[in-house]
Amino acid sequence: MTETLHPVYLDCDTGIDDALALGHLLASPIAELVGVGTVHGNIDAAGAAENTLRLLNLAGRSGDNAVPVAVGAGKPLVGEFSGGAVAVHGDDGIGGVRASLPEADAAPDTEDTEDSVDLLVRLSHEYAGELQILAIGPLTNLAHALVRDPTLVDRIAGVTVMGGAALVPGNARPAAEANIWHDPEAAQATVAASWPVTLVPLDTTMEHTLDETYRRRLAEAASPYARACGEMLDVYLNFYETVVLGRRAAALHDPLAAAIMLGEVALLDAPRVHVEVDCTDGPSRGSTVCDLRSQRKAPGDVPGATVRVVLETAPGYVDLLTELLESL
Amino acid sequence: MTETLHPVYLDCDTGIDDALALGHLLASPIAELVGVGTVHGNIDAAGAAENTLRLLNLAGRSGDNAVPVAVGAGKPLVGEFSGGAVAVHGDDGIGGVRASLPEADAAPDTEDTEDSVDLLVRLSHEYAGELQILAIGPLTNLAHALVRDPTLVDRIAGVTVMGGAALVPGNARPAAEANIWHDPEAAQATVAASWPVTLVPLDTTMEHTLDETYRRRLAEAASPYARACGEMLDVYLNFYETVVLGRRAAALHDPLAAAIMLGEVALLDAPRVHVEVDCTDGPSRGSTVCDLRSQRKAPGDVPGATVRVVLETAPGYVDLLTELLESL
Repeated sequence: MTETLHPVYLDCDTGIDDALALGHLLASPIAELVGVGTVHGNIDAAGAAENTLRLLNLAGRSGDNAVPVAVGAGKPLVGEFSGGAVAVHGDDGIGGVRASLPEADAAPDTEDTEDSVDLLVRLSHEYAGELQILAIGPLTNLAHALVRDPTLVDRIAGVTVMGGAALVPGNARPAAEANIWHDPEAAQATVAASWPVTLVPLDTTMEHTLDETYRRRLAEAASPYARACGEMLDVYLNFYETVVLGRRAAALHDPLAAAIMLGEVALLDAPRVHVEVDCTDGPSRGSTVCDLRSQRKAPGDVPGATVRVVLETAPGYVDLLTELLESL
Repeated sequence: MTETLHPVYLDCDTGIDDALALGHLLASPIAELVGVGTVHGNIDAAGAAENTLRLLNLAGRSGDNAVPVAVGAGKPLVGEFSGGAVAVHGDDGIGGVRASLPEADAAPDTEDTEDSVDLLVRLSHEYAGELQILAIGPLTNLAHALVRDPTLVDRIAGVTVMGGAALVPGNARPAAEANIWHDPEAAQATVAASWPVTLVPLDTTMEHTLDETYRRRLAEAASPYARACGEMLDVYLNFYETVVLGRRAAALHDPLAAAIMLGEVALLDAPRVHVEVDCTDGPSRGSTVCDLRSQRKAPGDVPGATVRVVLETAPGYVDLLTELLESL
C-alpha cells in the first residue's frame, strides 16, 4: 500500500510553534512542502520569511532542494500590524535563536517577484485538486488570494487553519484566539469560502502540550533542527509558565494543525457546523461563533456546513512530533 | 441554629420553568417571597403576571396571604417584544394549564398603581441590605430600576440571574442564551452595576434535567401546585425531546437559579470574573463574554470582578425541587 503524498502550501508567521509545524511537515513521509507564504502575526511578514528560510536551510532544504518562500501580507485587511508577540515568541519570533541559525542562501520572494498570493495561486494550478493549505497565522494571505482568484477554491483539496476557540476561553481576548483576532475579516472570508475548512481551535490545541522533559530531549537531540526547537522552546515555556498555565508546558497549536491535516491524529469530536467570525468592534471581535447547538441533540455534521471544527482529538501527539523533529 | 430567612424579589416571565422556580421559593423554608415583578420574555409581561397570580393563588398565597405582583417592562430597552416562546412554553406560557388554575382574586399592579420597578425600589428600602433579587427573565426591569434609582445597588444583598452561556453553546442563538438575547443592553447594565451578581448560565443549568419519571411523579402528587407543574411540563418536555436534547428531559434553568441563590446547591466551579454582554448587532449579540482566561493558570476569583459565573454545580437538584413542589 502506498501512502498518498500530500502537497502542502504552508501559510505562517514563524513563530516558535510555527517552527515546530514546519519541522513536522519537513520530516513527515506523507507531506511534500511545495511552498511557504508568510504573514504578519507573531512577527512581521519579512521576519517570518527570514526565520522560515533559515529553518529550511537548517533542515537542508536550500539550493537545489529549496522550498519557495514568499513574503505575504504585512498587515491585516483592517487596521495595522499588531507589532508581534514578543513576550510569547521573543524579539526575533523564534526565541532568540535566529542569529545562531545558518543564513539563508537566497532572499525570499516578495511582491517584486512572486508574493505569497501569487505563489499560492501558482501552486493551486500545479497541484490542482490536490493542494492542501495549512494556515497557522492570521488569514490575511488567504483572504487576498480569494479576491485575486475566486476560482482558487475549486483547486484546493482542503484548508486547515490553526485558530479560534469554540467552547473554551480565547487567548488574545476573552473570546478570541490570536490568529483570528489579528485579522477577523480575513478569517470570516476564509470560513465563508466554498472550500473545505478544518478549524483547529484552542479547544483541542490546549490539550496537547510539550513539557520541559520533551524540551530537553529536543535540546539534546542529534538533529540540529530538533536542537534549535529545543532551544527556542525555552522562551515559549517561560511564557506559558508565567502567564498561561502556571506550569512549564506549552500548547502545540501549530504543529497539531499539521498533524490533523495529514490525518495523523485521530479526531474524537469534529463536527462540520456553521461558523461565523465576529467582525464587529464589540467584546466578541475575533471570536469564532460556531453553531454547536444541534450537537446536544444530534452530534455530528450539520447538512450544508463546510467548516469542520476540531473539538477533541486523541492524546499522544507530542511523541510523534518529537520523533519527527529528531529525525530531521 | 436558626437558618436566615432570605427576603426575595422575583423578576420573571412566567414560563414553565419560572413556575418551578416560583414553587421552589414558595415551598422553601429559608426564602420569603416579598414581591414579584414580571417582564416580557417567554410570554408578554401582563400574561406573566396573570400566570404568576394564578400560581400564587393555587399555592394559597392570595387574600391576606398574598404576594404583591407588579407588571414590568413589556419590551426590551432596544427593539420590540419578541412574541414569546410559544414552542417552548405553550400559548399561555405555562403549557396550556392557565385556564385550569383558580382565577386570581386581584389584578396585578401596573404602572397606574405600582409597576415592578417601583415595587423593587420599595422593597429595597423595606429590606435594605437583605433583599435578594432573583431574575429569571430578560433583565429589562432591573435595568430600568438602576436608572430610576441609582442608589438601589447599595441596598441589594445580591442579584442572581438565570442567563448566559460561558463555555457551552447558547440556545436562542449560537452564542446567546434566551434571557440575555432578549435584552442584551439590560443584561449589560445589570452585570456592570456595582452589586454582587451571580450568573447561572446554561453551563450548569443544562446539567440539571427533569425527566419523564419525575414529571409523572409531580403529575400524580397530592399537591395541586405540583400537579399543575407536572401537567405543564408535558409541553416543555415535548420541546426538549424534539428540538433540544432528543430525549424526554428538560433543563431546570430557572429553579436551579433559585436554589443557587439560597445556597441549596453546592458550587463546584464558580469564579468571580469580568463579564461583558455583547450588545453589537453582530453574530455574538447577546452572548455573555466571560473572561475565563486566567482560570487556566489560577482557577478562582479575579480581583475586582463582581460577577460570579456558575460553571459547575453538584448534581441532584431535581430531587430537592420535586420534594419542595410536593410539599406545597
